[in-house]
Amino acid sequence: MFITFEGIDGSGKSTQARRLATHLEQSGRDIVLTREPGGSAGAEEIRRLLVEGDPGRWSAETEILLFTAARRDHLERTIRPALEAGKTVISDRFADSTRVYQGATRGDLRAVVDALHAQMIGMEPDLTLIIDMDPDEALARGLARRSGEDRFEDMGASFQHRLHAGFRALAADFPNRCRLIDGNRSVDDVATDVLQAIR
Amino acid sequence: MFITFEGIDGSGKSTQARRLATHLEQSGRDIVLTREPGGSAGAEEIRRLLVEGDPGRWSAETEILLFTAARRDHLERTIRPALEAGKTVISDRFADSTRVYQGATRGDLRAVVDALHAQMIGMEPDLTLIIDMDPDEALARGLARRSGEDRFEDMGASFQHRLHAGFRALAADFPNRCRLIDGNRSVDDVATDVLQAIR
Ligand SMILES: Nc1ncnc2c1ncn2[C@@H]1O[C@H](COP(=O)(O)OP(=O)(O)OP(=O)(O)O)[C@@H](O)[C@H]1O
Ligand SMILES: Nc1ncnc2c1ncn2[C@@H]1O[C@H](COP(=O)(O)OP(=O)(O)OP(=O)(O)O)[C@@H](O)[C@H]1O
Ligand SMILES: [Mg+2]
Ligand SMILES: [Mg+2]
Repeated sequence: MFITFEGIDGSGKSTQARRLATHLEQSGRDIVLTREPGGSAGAEEIRRLLVEGDPGRWSAETEILLFTAARRDHLERTIRPALEAGKTVISDRFADSTRVYQGATRGDLRAVVDALHAQMIGMEPDLTLIIDMDPDEALARGLARRSGEDRFEDMGASFQHRLHAGFRALAADFPNRCRLIDGNRSVDDVATDVLQAIR
Repeated sequence: MFITFEGIDGSGKSTQARRLATHLEQSGRDIVLTREPGGSAGAEEIRRLLVEGDPGRWSAETEILLFTAARRDHLERTIRPALEAGKTVISDRFADSTRVYQGATRGDLRAVVDALHAQMIGMEPDLTLIIDMDPDEALARGLARRSGEDRFEDMGASFQHRLHAGFRALAADFPNRCRLIDGNRSVDDVATDVLQAIR
């Protein structure tokens, strides 16, 4: 099983991914909890180029190439070996983030994202949980942390609104594997919905 | 005019690129001398991930994506603006290095390199000077420097021999824009041949 969490910045993906990993570990499963960009030594180095610094430091096209490079490394060195060993992989973001951030929101580049994905990645999660929540509140949550990894948050509120619409459209694009989860509630309530979607 | 230098590690590309730039500047042209991987602020950051460290740190596929990301940034921020301003661009390596290193030598991935190039780069140099020389001597030259940027040199002598064959095959692939230059001679003699190819 390969499960991914998706959604706009600050929507609660990392919180819910951790909760789900703990829950499934307690029920005796072997879990690999990982994230993108990153999740392998090389991909974590590429991550720093992507999430830090000036919003304009890369064009959307260069970003797609860097995210796909990081994903390829993550897939080869973390995801595939874990799945082949029979483990459950939970990833905090995966290819859908590139489809929405670079393919639909920073540019009109969905065809480029899809072509690169087909060529260099060629696999989809079994289940994708998209945490759907109010973009202004999510942005406030995320910016409250100010992690130094705020390059996409720094693209502004209207960018977060367009991402929000993009994730909803994506859920409609891939109805078989995507579930929208209402994130405008307590951590416990959201976690309950996540578990229900897993079953 | 967009001119590139290609060839195996230590063959004299940087030396000859500088010589040619100086010569053309003295004849009154506006020259941008640049290099790959690198040639723009972002691409130079990607360069460090590629030329330093353990030979096995990236697969050939991830390398292709990283080189193409760096090239896209280099193209957008350095090469295109210079060409549009009427300048002559001389680049120490460009897409042919990816065709030979990752497409033909580290893997059998030429189709992947070509597809990515068509999609994300989509242009070729007007003239490519391939410095052709004995791989063992070139490797000795390069390693004598030990720059800390020796990841490809560290792939060993047989890798350099296969690169050498790869660059010869490439020259035959693109006969209109590629010229093989015999690099087994003095810097001055090689420079004379370079100038002759330019005319
Ligand atoms: N349901 C919730 N209610 C209130 N606060 C929450 C909720 N879920 C997460 N938070 C808090 O909001 C902030 C963002 O949560 P989290 O880091 O899980 O989001 P994220 O989607 O991973 O963000 P990013 O995209 O920046 O990685 C954290 O400080 C977290 O503790
Ligand atoms: N024709 C030549 N004869 C002898 N030595 C040379 C010649 N051309 C260059 N060199 C020397 O060989 C070394 C490698 O040359 P150079 O740096 O130009 O090669 P390169 O192809 O750019 O190498 P790399 O691929 O490592 O960047 C340098 O020390 C340089 O001074
Ligand atoms: Mg997070
Ligand atoms: Mg050089």
